[in-house]
Amino acid sequence: VSPMNALWFDLGNISLRQLQQPQPAKGEVLLRTRLAGICGTDLALLEGYSQFKGVPGHEFVADVVEGPAHWLGRRVVAGINLGCGDCDFCVQGRVEHCRERQVVGIRQAQGAFAEYLCLPEANLLAVPADLSDEHAAMAEPVAAALQILEQLVVPETARVLIIGAGRMAQLIARVLLTQTSTVDVLARTDQRWRYFADLPVGQLTGELQGLQHYDIVVECSGNPAGLTTAMAAVKPLGVIVLKSTYGAQTKIDASYLVVNEVTLLGSRCGPMQIALDWLVRNPLPVEILASQTFTLQDGVRALDIAKGAGAGKCFLAPGGAY
Amino acid sequence: VSPMNALWFDLGNISLRQLQQPQPAKGEVLLRTRLAGICGTDLALLEGYSQFKGVPGHEFVADVVEGPAHWLGRRVVAGINLGCGDCDFCVQGRVEHCRERQVVGIRQAQGAFAEYLCLPEANLLAVPADLSDEHAAMAEPVAAALQILEQLVVPETARVLIIGAGRMAQLIARVLLTQTSTVDVLARTDQRWRYFADLPVGQLTGELQGLQHYDIVVECSGNPAGLTTAMAAVKPLGVIVLKSTYGAQTKIDASYLVVNEVTLLGSRCGPMQIALDWLVRNPLPVEILASQTFTLQDGVRALDIAKGAGAGKCFLAPGGAY
Repeated sequence: VSPMNALWFDLGNISLRQLQQPQPAKGEVLLRTRLAGICGTDLALLEGYSQFKGVPGHEFVADVVEGPAHWLGRRVVAGINLGCGDCDFCVQGRVEHCRERQVVGIRQAQGAFAEYLCLPEANLLAVPADLSDEHAAMAEPVAAALQILEQLVVPETARVLIIGAGRMAQLIARVLLTQTSTVDVLARTDQRWRYFADLPVGQLTGELQGLQHYDIVVECSGNPAGLTTAMAAVKPLGVIVLKSTYGAQTKIDASYLVVNEVTLLGSRCGPMQIALDWLVRNPLPVEILASQTFTLQDGVRALDIAKGAGAGKCFLAPGGAY
Repeated sequence: VSPMNALWFDLGNISLRQLQQPQPAKGEVLLRTRLAGICGTDLALLEGYSQFKGVPGHEFVADVVEGPAHWLGRRVVAGINLGCGDCDFCVQGRVEHCRERQVVGIRQAQGAFAEYLCLPEANLLAVPADLSDEHAAMAEPVAAALQILEQLVVPETARVLIIGAGRMAQLIARVLLTQTSTVDVLARTDQRWRYFADLPVGQLTGELQGLQHYDIVVECSGNPAGLTTAMAAVKPLGVIVLKSTYGAQTKIDASYLVVNEVTLLGSRCGPMQIALDWLVRNPLPVEILASQTFTLQDGVRALDIAKGAGAGKCFLAPGGAY
């Protein structure tokens, strides 16, 4: 068994480690990571979310280097939820809610901040040839943004507010602008607006204006205070979509939800194949995403940069080819 | 102007007062209250909810004693939301979410714990002759229970948990049992089960069993802790319907909603005409409701009795005819 480099998270500590290259079990393939994106959830893991210990990385594109002939050599992305196959959710094909699930790079399964990883064949999706690695590595977060449209009809007259102006917010804005032209984005600082330069969104900084003004509010600030702001911003009969995961509790006035018949909708992973198709039709302007790519050896610095309020998308290239 | 008796709430204090009989404005009728139900919301008002000061009472049946000929002498119930007529919600016919609304007996409008009250003609609904006063006075809470079906499809395979075993819980159980046969009710004590004696519900007392077990959880305990229990009880992809209003904040783990894609749905007033029709088809067993009727003079005692965990439905008969 050969060694490989990997970034290792251990309850807040990061280190570069030499691990044994994983070996595919029955039904699995061995993947060599081409590119892996750093996501807000990775930063939350570092702050204790999900008590994760291991190799993170759940946004990635990789080559199949060991597996059945029809996959061998192909460039792939993958669904990150690993189901037990037996529970009520797996039986219904909702593996993302398997009661015993592992989640690549987030929960009990090693992720893509490593040279190699193993995944079930059933999770793989072939990447269209005309999609760049950077775009393909965005399939997972784009799917998460598209999940909103799987859960909710967004009428073309809807007034939408996105709370947070991070990388996820930007993808959500792109997805929602395909449905309605009225999308405002609320940021804590001005630092991120340059990444929204090509998008016709209303740019709001600091305090919320417009109480009870929005039909749909998407909370993706990564911050418990975002939900309080969302509740003040949403109209009666409106919907708050929750996208942030963090390791803290939030105080809410549940009676306010009752009196105003507001809906809170938790939203997580989305449809990967639809995301790939969407990316082919809606290429992301790379200069706007302002992506930066780092080697694994530079991973600690990459995570630091990703944490900064003004950072664009940061990628790790475990093969070092970038 | 003649005097009339009324119960008066003043931030926690109740008194019997002699007030001036109200005079109908343009478009309004004068009603003489036949029967008014005491509701959990009335008890919450006494504990400071909505900072209400005035005459409560929003579940009632009354006679039209002054107004246009086609209403005069008729026995009616009424929608309790009074809209401004001008705002975006009123224009859409969603007067219950009018931005400047008054709510009879709850917010800035005098209610039915009085001999007389005035209401807009537009809010009236004629009571079918074969519906008793007790049943007609239940139209408002039955409408609130039916509102769940206006907002949510309840499949016949759904496993439902109702948290709370109060008067509202009992109506919600009756309504949901028309959709699915699997309804459990979670009570804090055994005292209320006799009111569920005719209903095929699972009776759970004390601690929740069955984590992540229910497709739909209805929280109507009137207690902030109910939401915490609801979140533990609901399945991934499930729905929590919020029915309780109270004057306190609740701590929630919003990330849990995200990861499990749970929906929180605030639910308030419902369709009054549908409620009247439903009551005609589904008479409530009065011996099970164990209703007690009091005069206004006995109102303080009636509210005290209604507060007790084992109390059935309490009514006030301001005309004293009961």
